[in-house]
Amino acid sequence: MQSTSQPSSLPSTVAASVAADTSTLSYEQAGVNYDLIDPLKIAAQRAAAATAVSMTGRGFAEVTASRGESAYVLDVGPFYLASIVECLGTKTLVADEMAQLTGRSWYDGIAQDTIAMAINDLITVGATPLVVQAYWAAGGSAWFEDKLRANALVDGWKKACDVCKVAWGGGETPALAGIVEAGRIDLAASCTGIVSPKDRLSLGDHLGAGDAIVLLASSGIHANGLSLARKLVERLPQGYLTEIDPVNHPGLSYGAALLAPTVLYSPVTEALAAAGIRPHYCANITGHGWRKLLRHPIEMTYRIHTVPPVTPVLKFIQEQARQDDHEAYSTLNMGAGFALYVAAEDAERCVEIAKAQGIDAWVAGRLEAGPKRLLIEPLGIEYGSDDLQLR
Amino acid sequence: MQSTSQPSSLPSTVAASVAADTSTLSYEQAGVNYDLIDPLKIAAQRAAAATAVSMTGRGFAEVTASRGESAYVLDVGPFYLASIVECLGTKTLVADEMAQLTGRSWYDGIAQDTIAMAINDLITVGATPLVVQAYWAAGGSAWFEDKLRANALVDGWKKACDVCKVAWGGGETPALAGIVEAGRIDLAASCTGIVSPKDRLSLGDHLGAGDAIVLLASSGIHANGLSLARKLVERLPQGYLTEIDPVNHPGLSYGAALLAPTVLYSPVTEALAAAGIRPHYCANITGHGWRKLLRHPIEMTYRIHTVPPVTPVLKFIQEQARQDDHEAYSTLNMGAGFALYVAAEDAERCVEIAKAQGIDAWVAGRLEAGPKRLLIEPLGIEYGSDDLQLR
Repeated sequence: MQSTSQPSSLPSTVAASVAADTSTLSYEQAGVNYDLIDPLKIAAQRAAAATAVSMTGRGFAEVTASRGESAYVLDVGPFYLASIVECLGTKTLVADEMAQLTGRSWYDGIAQDTIAMAINDLITVGATPLVVQAYWAAGGSAWFEDKLRANALVDGWKKACDVCKVAWGGGETPALAGIVEAGRIDLAASCTGIVSPKDRLSLGDHLGAGDAIVLLASSGIHANGLSLARKLVERLPQGYLTEIDPVNHPGLSYGAALLAPTVLYSPVTEALAAAGIRPHYCANITGHGWRKLLRHPIEMTYRIHTVPPVTPVLKFIQEQARQDDHEAYSTLNMGAGFALYVAAEDAERCVEIAKAQGIDAWVAGRLEAGPKRLLIEPLGIEYGSDDLQLR
Repeated sequence: MQSTSQPSSLPSTVAASVAADTSTLSYEQAGVNYDLIDPLKIAAQRAAAATAVSMTGRGFAEVTASRGESAYVLDVGPFYLASIVECLGTKTLVADEMAQLTGRSWYDGIAQDTIAMAINDLITVGATPLVVQAYWAAGGSAWFEDKLRANALVDGWKKACDVCKVAWGGGETPALAGIVEAGRIDLAASCTGIVSPKDRLSLGDHLGAGDAIVLLASSGIHANGLSLARKLVERLPQGYLTEIDPVNHPGLSYGAALLAPTVLYSPVTEALAAAGIRPHYCANITGHGWRKLLRHPIEMTYRIHTVPPVTPVLKFIQEQARQDDHEAYSTLNMGAGFALYVAAEDAERCVEIAKAQGIDAWVAGRLEAGPKRLLIEPLGIEYGSDDLQLR
C-alpha cells in the first residue's frame, strides 16, 4: 500500500484568481512518481518474505498467501493473527485549509479516515479488528495548542473505535520538528485482529467462477486520490469553497465534500460473519480505484453488470479533471468503497445485511472463467492484468 | 510514550565556527514542551480507556493494568495479545547530517533503532514479539532515489527482525510531500506479540519488597535524548565529527557514537522465559532516563547499589551540557537500557543469561518497603514520585 502526496501549491484564496485550466489532469501529473518508490518496495517485500523462517519450529506459521494482500496473517494455533499499519496520507492538508476557511475543525472526520485506512484493510482477510493504536506525529508541540482541533481528533478517534468495536490501546504522540512540517501532522493507525474461527480466512482459496461481486457504497473520495483532488483546487474559482452541485446539493462545498469521512466497513463484515456468510475474498477499493477489484492473483474475468451511483464529489472531480470513465475508474472509488466476493447464493443477503448496517450495497457482477480482466459493461471499460501491479 | 524534537538549527559546518557556550543545557531548553502535549495525552488516555467496553461479551477482555504501561494487553483466551506502535523520533536528522559528512549511509542502524523502540516496549509486558510492520513516511518520492540509503534501511530492518525472530509483515511507504519535510523520513514500527503461557505476563502483580533490579547495558544514547544531543552540536568545535574520547576511543566521532544502534533486548527476555524465569516487571529505559525505573504505580523504594559504567557518548553529552548527575540520570539512560525486576534468587542467573546473549548486565539494586523513590546510592541521587509523571 502506498499513499501519495503533492502539496497544494496555492492556498485557495490565491487559487480563486487562477484562470481555468481546461487540460486533462492525470494522477501522475498530480505529483506521484511510483517508479522511484517501487524498487524499494520490491526490495522490502523480498527482505520481509525472508523473515518468515523465524516462525518455524516455534508453533507459529506465516500464512504466505497473505503476503501482497492488505494485511499480514500469522497462524498462532487456535486462530490467525492479522496486523497492519496504515497511513492516512495527505487528507489533513485539506482539513487544515478548510479549518482556515470555515473556522471549525474537521479532525473528527480525519480521525475516522485514519482508522478506516487500517480497519478496512485488516478486515479483507476475514479478521475481526480488536485493537487500534494511534500514531499522531506532529510538526512540533505547538500543533497541540489548538484545543478545538486536538479534541476533535480525540473524539473522532474514539467514535470510530466504538463503531468498529475495537479497543483503542494507546499510541504515540511525538513532536517531530525538523521532520514533520510545522503546523502539520502525520497520522497513521496500526490495527491488530484475529481471524476466528479460522474458516473466516478470506484470502481467495475458495474464489472461483460463479462467485458474485457485491459492492459497498463509499461516502466520497475516502482517503485516496487526494493528491489529484488538491491539485484540482488551483483550477476552481472559489477553491475549496466552490459548490460542487448547486442544484442537487446547494451549499455543499468541494472541501466539505472531500472531507466526508471514509466509511468503516467492519460492522458489515462482522454482521456477515454472525450470519454465517463467509466471503471468499474482499478488496478495499483505495488507490488504483476499481483496478483493485483485480487484486487477487487468480486468472479470472470479473464482469460488472451494475454500477453504483457516483458520489457527487467524485463526479465533480472527474468533470473538473476532464477524465474519461476509463481513467476515473482506474484512480477513484467512484461510489464503491469495498468489494465482497461471495458465493452467488449469498449475494442478495450480503446486500440486505450491509443495508441493515446503514451502508448501501449492490450485487454488481460475477466472476467467470477467462483471461484476467475487469469488464465494466455499462461503461464499456476493460482493465487487463497489465493495468494492475499492486502486489 | 512521547518522542520529542528540535531541528538542528545549524549545519555542522556552520556550527564549527560557533563560540563555545558554557552554560548548562537542559532537556527543556532543547525544545520540548510537554505542557502542550500532556492535556491531549490525558484526553486521549481517557477516551481510549472508555473504548474497552467494546470487548465485553465477545470473549475478549482488556487487561486494564496494561493501560499506562509500555504495551497494550488484551486477553483473547488461550493467551494475551500485546500490541504497540512506536516512533523513532528525530535520530534520522543525525543520520542525515552524518551521511553528508561521511559519504556513507547510517540507515542500517536507524532501522534497528526504530524496531528497538517498538520491540523493547512490547517485551516489557512479557510478550514474545511476533510481527513487525514498517512505517516509512518520506517527504516525497525523491527520498527513495538514494539507493544506498534505501537499501541500508531495508537491510537493517531485516537484520533487526531476524535478531528478534519476528516476521516482517509488511508496512507502508507513503510519500507525504507537504506533511513530511522534503528530504526527511518519519520512521515508526508497529509490533504485535503474544504473552504465552499466560503466566509470563509481567505487569507487576508479583512485584514487591526483596525483588532485585537487574540492569541491561545500553549501547549509547539509543533513540531518546536526541533533541538535547542535536542541540549540543552547536557548541562543538567540529560538530558531529568532534572526537568524544581521543585517548580511549581515538577516531570515534560524536555523530558515529550517537548513531550506535539501540540494543534489541528481546533475545534476553526470550532466553529468560526459556530458562523458566518470570520477571515480575520490566522497564524500558527511554525518555526520562532512570526515572523510568519508578514507572510501576506501586509504592516502594528502589535502592540502587551498583551503577553500570556510563557509555562514552553519554559521558560526553553530560560533560558538554554541564549537567550534574541528578539531571543526567533523569534524562538519559547512562549505560542501562532496560531493567528487569526479578525474584532475588533469579538475579544472578538473569545476568548470566543476558551475558550469554552478548548483553552486559548487573544486579544493580533491590526493592524495599518505603515511600516511592529511587535512591542511586553510589551517586547520592534521589528521585521521588513527583519526578515521574509518565502514565
